[in-house]
Amino acid sequence: MTEVQHQKWWGWGVEGVTFTHDNKPNFAPFVLDKVGLDLSLGGTPPPRFEDLEVPAPRLPDALADELRAAVGETHVVTGDMERVVHTYGKGISDLVRVRAGDLPRVPDVVVYPGDEDEVRAVVDLADAADAVIIPFGGGSNISGSLTPEPGETRPVVSLDMGRMNKVLEIDETSGLARVQAGVLGPDLEEQLGARGWTSGHQPDSFRHSTLGGWVATRSSGMQSDRYGDIADITRGLRSVLPGRVVSLRPLPSTSTGPSVREMIIGSEGRLGVITEVWIHVHRLPEKRLVVAYLYQSWGSALEAMREISTSDVHPSITRVSDPAETQFSLSTQKAQTGIKGKISTGIFDLLARRGWDLDQVCLSYVGYEGSPKHVAYQRRAVGRIVGRHGGIPLGTGPGALYDQKKFDTPYIRDFLLDMGALADVSETAAPWARLRGIYERTVTAARATYDALGVRGYIMCHLSHSYHSGACLYFTFAFPADDADGAAPPLEQYWQLKSAIQQSFIDGGGTLSHHHGVGTDHAPWMEADISEAGVELMVGLLGSADPHRRLNPGTLLPAHREW
Amino acid sequence: MTEVQHQKWWGWGVEGVTFTHDNKPNFAPFVLDKVGLDLSLGGTPPPRFEDLEVPAPRLPDALADELRAAVGETHVVTGDMERVVHTYGKGISDLVRVRAGDLPRVPDVVVYPGDEDEVRAVVDLADAADAVIIPFGGGSNISGSLTPEPGETRPVVSLDMGRMNKVLEIDETSGLARVQAGVLGPDLEEQLGARGWTSGHQPDSFRHSTLGGWVATRSSGMQSDRYGDIADITRGLRSVLPGRVVSLRPLPSTSTGPSVREMIIGSEGRLGVITEVWIHVHRLPEKRLVVAYLYQSWGSALEAMREISTSDVHPSITRVSDPAETQFSLSTQKAQTGIKGKISTGIFDLLARRGWDLDQVCLSYVGYEGSPKHVAYQRRAVGRIVGRHGGIPLGTGPGALYDQKKFDTPYIRDFLLDMGALADVSETAAPWARLRGIYERTVTAARATYDALGVRGYIMCHLSHSYHSGACLYFTFAFPADDADGAAPPLEQYWQLKSAIQQSFIDGGGTLSHHHGVGTDHAPWMEADISEAGVELMVGLLGSADPHRRLNPGTLLPAHREW
Repeated sequence: MTEVQHQKWWGWGVEGVTFTHDNKPNFAPFVLDKVGLDLSLGGTPPPRFEDLEVPAPRLPDALADELRAAVGETHVVTGDMERVVHTYGKGISDLVRVRAGDLPRVPDVVVYPGDEDEVRAVVDLADAADAVIIPFGGGSNISGSLTPEPGETRPVVSLDMGRMNKVLEIDETSGLARVQAGVLGPDLEEQLGARGWTSGHQPDSFRHSTLGGWVATRSSGMQSDRYGDIADITRGLRSVLPGRVVSLRPLPSTSTGPSVREMIIGSEGRLGVITEVWIHVHRLPEKRLVVAYLYQSWGSALEAMREISTSDVHPSITRVSDPAETQFSLSTQKAQTGIKGKISTGIFDLLARRGWDLDQVCLSYVGYEGSPKHVAYQRRAVGRIVGRHGGIPLGTGPGALYDQKKFDTPYIRDFLLDMGALADVSETAAPWARLRGIYERTVTAARATYDALGVRGYIMCHLSHSYHSGACLYFTFAFPADDADGAAPPLEQYWQLKSAIQQSFIDGGGTLSHHHGVGTDHAPWMEADISEAGVELMVGLLGSADPHRRLNPGTLLPAHREW
Repeated sequence: MTEVQHQKWWGWGVEGVTFTHDNKPNFAPFVLDKVGLDLSLGGTPPPRFEDLEVPAPRLPDALADELRAAVGETHVVTGDMERVVHTYGKGISDLVRVRAGDLPRVPDVVVYPGDEDEVRAVVDLADAADAVIIPFGGGSNISGSLTPEPGETRPVVSLDMGRMNKVLEIDETSGLARVQAGVLGPDLEEQLGARGWTSGHQPDSFRHSTLGGWVATRSSGMQSDRYGDIADITRGLRSVLPGRVVSLRPLPSTSTGPSVREMIIGSEGRLGVITEVWIHVHRLPEKRLVVAYLYQSWGSALEAMREISTSDVHPSITRVSDPAETQFSLSTQKAQTGIKGKISTGIFDLLARRGWDLDQVCLSYVGYEGSPKHVAYQRRAVGRIVGRHGGIPLGTGPGALYDQKKFDTPYIRDFLLDMGALADVSETAAPWARLRGIYERTVTAARATYDALGVRGYIMCHLSHSYHSGACLYFTFAFPADDADGAAPPLEQYWQLKSAIQQSFIDGGGTLSHHHGVGTDHAPWMEADISEAGVELMVGLLGSADPHRRLNPGTLLPAHREW
């Protein structure tokens, strides 16, 4: 046993927290209308863990003894539950497979080192024993980065960083903190906040992902417009490889050849175990506001977002939902009238009288931080841009509610899975000129796939993370799997859809992922994204660092490029 | 012959442009006072090119014929002048050596491809012939990145990118331009400016360096606070390696594993020849101002700079000189009284009456861009910070003059070299908390070295390029070499000084270079900067891409890490 708390083996978050639509009267009608799923019929809960057939660990006794000597008896765990929790991330594919007891290769042991010396010992022991090492943070990955290769014959060690969760020091003059990589988002912010600081990093997975995981997968957060992506936030780090440690001191910028920092960022365990990170930290802002806006159309909303990105002001959050996601958001509003934050239906009556097509309305959130004066200055500047594009402000009430609920969406996916519907997300980034094309292409591809599968599906999107030259498009899609006799298995249906969406990103000039990483799921598109010669450079880098493929093998690269 | 214009073989810039102090009455007294050099004695001009002994080219006939067939007769040059110009960059070491006719290994041929297909042909031909390829942009490198290894026995091809100087397309929606890598700074800005755009990138070398060179060495510019370092500006690129091309599409951000873009940025020719770059471009700002300020001390100036960097506003330029550089700047002012831009001595009388120690005064420039309203908003905010730290504004006159003269400093170095004085620059970047320590350590080390050498030397510094967590410190140093009988050769004296300064950077927690690259000069500090294991990753990357060391071998890595 260990003190490290894990997510549910079968779904998102910790036991006891789930999605409910009891108090959201519009949700069930919305789902029935859009995908034909009758929520009143009730769903199938996950199986009991006891009913899974978990393969026995194949851990050589000598290695087990050595690991126990290195990190202590209680921090070497071979129980079924811990090993299953460490087998998968939380993509829909992971959840379907684990609920089905599909466990072709489960880690043989979960090890919880307490400091970097113990990490070094574990890595060296595993290396000497020809074992595979898979670093594990919060287990929230949705790209297949955490799962052992199914045919792996060597011992598999899941190296859980959960005990290494301390802010070690804060350089208050420079705005830099040295932090152990295993810290979860809320814990990090609590430790920083106690001294008046914040990292500002808020990925959707914030509550259940770690700093090391963010770095290893090139994470981005809702406030990255202001605070930067994790690649910007990370100024130095340490990564443990067999027999050596890459140590990069914190530097604001440097001209030291190909960036080793940028090699380890995104390396998903293939360049060692990240133990410490020097991150940017910022004083908690004097004032922080999230303001909601409505636009008449997706096209005008995208144009407004682009204009904001090239303006003199720099909001902390720039986000706008397409009409489909706007309607979904409204369907999840709570029942009470008059609740602070609710978007009143009255406003829609008013807009309809003004001639707005309510099916095309797009809901946007823009965040502002800084001194009260600076917040006001930015809000006025953005307000003028929104107005020029025909949008209207809704004030701070809905924004405050968005801010409270922003981490809750993944729970809906588990609920829908109980109901037999598969829901997942895919995101890309592309130049501004490409976004509309990628959007149309992706929605069309999804609809064509739903038609080909004979299912009723939904796809919705938001723009977030604005940059000078482009932005991220984040798609959420869901469909009740065809369970008729002779239909393909649900996951095959899902992969057909997911593949069509990924291909649309690439064909439209976008990247295979803006911030979810590559894993195994996105690896087939790597050569199309960064070119064959680009993958060849990566193979050279990874292969020279890990010639025997002991460091999380199988992730990042298409299978035919493994050595 | 070719249409590509080159810098002087013996110094900075093009023939006919030189530094003169005829109209700068304070300069000669300043130099006499600080380093004991009497400028009235006149200097020794560079030797005549005809007096150099240039080794004959060793180019196999077959390769010569193939190269001519690939790029055309006129674009394959083996003349002495062109080969010597392509032997060195423009560091003081380069200039001393080339003036002395120290030419142990000169490229055997200079090739000027006209497009990427020709680059591919040249690279493939050189590779097949076991020749070395050294990409050449503007030749302004000051870190030793351009010089063939002295013992190189294989043919050496200098691949000059000067004909590939076109802006190929501008994506006006996204603010992205696709540009050939051989374009010089002024040419780039002229082509962009004709359509209302700017890259905003203004390194000191702007007039004589190329986009490809900037990318290959991790360049930064005076306005990088606003426009980003070249690593930020570069969103996509193409690099030609033997038999293949790495092609990275323009993306605002991506999560595709270790960043191949960030591997090629800074690669100094070791990962191929960069042929095209997708860069950020910005609309020419409505308003642009550079305002001068004075501070009472270096300490208060650094504190003010730090506070600006954490404030709500983001100037385009943040620069402040230490007292030594401030005094140097004043010594180079022109004679006429009343000239717009001149810093009046009257202000110093006034400050002295206010109790300022004039020996401690620090001159600062801060740049503002955007709408007139935004420029005013930022200027007010910075003005408040400056005032809180006891500084005073001098208005826009001196700033405008600084803006005009900002690229001229390197010419002074050639003038001083004629006079027997060696002048050069070294820059670092470090967290804010480290800057003062690095400054003290570096100045102390330089003075101790001057003492040990028995010379009178000068060292001065400015802070520029502010980031959230730190800034760049840029040192300029000069001394008349000891030419007494038995004294070490001037370059040995120089290396003693340069090494002491570099070591101070590392010991103080800074990087070996902020934006000048590694080359051969800084390579000995690579392991201290990015750790032995970090260099090992780099060796793996470079070695797998270029197992036979044909791509600019010898740069980036300490000699004992070459394969």
